[in-house]
Amino acid sequence: MIRNNSELAQLGEFGLIKKIREQVKKFQSGAVVGIGDDAAGVKVKPGKIALFTTDTLVENVHFKWDYASGYQVGWKALAVNLSDIAAMGGVPTYCLVTLGMSKEVDLSLIDSIYQGLRALASLYNIGIIGGDIVSSPIFFITVALLGEENKEEVLLRSEAKEGDFIYLTGDLGTSAAGLFCLKEKELNVPIPLREKLQRRHLLPSPRVNEGRKIAKSKVASSMIDVSDGLTLDLSHILEESRVGAKIWEEKIPILKEVKKLAKEFNRSFLDWGLYGGEDYELLFTCSSKISLEDIKNSLGFSVTKIGKIVKGSPEIVLISSAGKQRKLKPKGWDHFSI
Amino acid sequence: MIRNNSELAQLGEFGLIKKIREQVKKFQSGAVVGIGDDAAGVKVKPGKIALFTTDTLVENVHFKWDYASGYQVGWKALAVNLSDIAAMGGVPTYCLVTLGMSKEVDLSLIDSIYQGLRALASLYNIGIIGGDIVSSPIFFITVALLGEENKEEVLLRSEAKEGDFIYLTGDLGTSAAGLFCLKEKELNVPIPLREKLQRRHLLPSPRVNEGRKIAKSKVASSMIDVSDGLTLDLSHILEESRVGAKIWEEKIPILKEVKKLAKEFNRSFLDWGLYGGEDYELLFTCSSKISLEDIKNSLGFSVTKIGKIVKGSPEIVLISSAGKQRKLKPKGWDHFSI
Repeated sequence: MIRNNSELAQLGEFGLIKKIREQVKKFQSGAVVGIGDDAAGVKVKPGKIALFTTDTLVENVHFKWDYASGYQVGWKALAVNLSDIAAMGGVPTYCLVTLGMSKEVDLSLIDSIYQGLRALASLYNIGIIGGDIVSSPIFFITVALLGEENKEEVLLRSEAKEGDFIYLTGDLGTSAAGLFCLKEKELNVPIPLREKLQRRHLLPSPRVNEGRKIAKSKVASSMIDVSDGLTLDLSHILEESRVGAKIWEEKIPILKEVKKLAKEFNRSFLDWGLYGGEDYELLFTCSSKISLEDIKNSLGFSVTKIGKIVKGSPEIVLISSAGKQRKLKPKGWDHFSI
Repeated sequence: MIRNNSELAQLGEFGLIKKIREQVKKFQSGAVVGIGDDAAGVKVKPGKIALFTTDTLVENVHFKWDYASGYQVGWKALAVNLSDIAAMGGVPTYCLVTLGMSKEVDLSLIDSIYQGLRALASLYNIGIIGGDIVSSPIFFITVALLGEENKEEVLLRSEAKEGDFIYLTGDLGTSAAGLFCLKEKELNVPIPLREKLQRRHLLPSPRVNEGRKIAKSKVASSMIDVSDGLTLDLSHILEESRVGAKIWEEKIPILKEVKKLAKEFNRSFLDWGLYGGEDYELLFTCSSKISLEDIKNSLGFSVTKIGKIVKGSPEIVLISSAGKQRKLKPKGWDHFSI
């Protein structure tokens, strides 16, 4: 294997996915949803789609053992997969778990990983029905998850339309603030706040029920989960739908205490909200003909209107409260980008 | 993470799987086939089972880049999964591919991995419909594969019966001989033979069509693929079926040239055949009421009768041509065993 220091870094994770997608174009036939969405979808019986997704956590890449417990890693490995099914509006059903680890790993760590997996699996009635265990010099956990959905309810990234408004469940930047607290153990952050924020990073709650309600209510035109960061995930919708977006800065839902913490320690809460990622909220678009009130009423929970889909290239423009516009570079969690 | 040098090694891969299986017992409801077989099975519509399996190859654990190409690693990563679906008698359908790799990896390597994946996927009309790409200090590839099967054709490990004969497709030990050649590059092995053997190790042909025929013909009572080695894989059938086995030494199908090679370089071809693994042949049991001729006629290909299921504890007894009996310890590929 000849190594080349810059090629993959230049291309980045999403450039590589695009390249691979081109290479396996012919292999999508039969799939209702192929490469390029949160989960793949295949027909199983008339009107029903099986959803199929996989996500991996790698030691020292996605987490460090010096701040994460086995329970949290097990929970999160399933949570990030559930979030992908939630982003399609689907019902998660069964998973397989692969553990890569060294012979020296402590058995109690594996027990606690499975405790975390079981705790979250119980909440959504997920079957843990198989997997693989392999020897590996570094620890990794891969979950492959199945789900199902009525065909007419599947929400893709590619159906956002010019004029649609952009909505968000919950708040953004909380997970990034939690990661900040985990990394800065010495900082004087009140313990209840520190624990609340860290919990959001380590034990995220995937929006499975919210995703189902959004899909069933049929208010949305497209949907994705915010895993890599608002700008990066929104840009996936824009690219797949061939549209642009405007985002109102003051509408981005960031918790008061997150703003306060950022100010106190000289960090940008806006950066956490725009680029932080790992909040696992749902980002979706709705026709402008449906009012925010009507959306809230049909969903039964609160959402925030943060922007608008516009005509043009897949660019995101941020509008400040003073009306100033600036183009945002989609950035966030990219595994290989320099 | 407190590390303990011996705990996992003492337990071994299969001890750990047993432990995990116990822990997730409650999470098998709804699954037609849960943890403990080659693939998991869930009902998708009346009479139809969806099969679901995953397998991983890790650099320097399952292969080394100094003898394996990207093409071969991509091919084999899918092949080992296809073999698991074959072992259930199923039809493989769709897969997801996860790549873990460092930023320094050469793009041409990823291209050749996908070439290998596509080459094998084309043979069996498999959709490559998604996956994940993560940064990792060591390379790994995980494939999650879906398949389907008529419910009444699913072949489990747990249905071998006392008195059944034990059959095998193809031959054993060839992959182990290939690995021997790959590791001993300096040895004077005729090039065509070396290439034939190495090819069996690097580009295995999963017995998908054979598995389907065995399932459809309904001659077999149980089935597994020989991935970890004859003794280890047979012992899985014995444990799940709560029976023992006798194997006739001279019946174990080992190629003449493999025997010759082993003798020439002072290796045991019997060890390669019994413990070598990675031949991805199918091992199955049939009622003694069906003759070998009838089995061959209904399958349309040749198989070898290598032994018999007997009453008792899940032990394997090897009978030599002189009639001598010795108990075999199930050993082979165990990721953690000492």
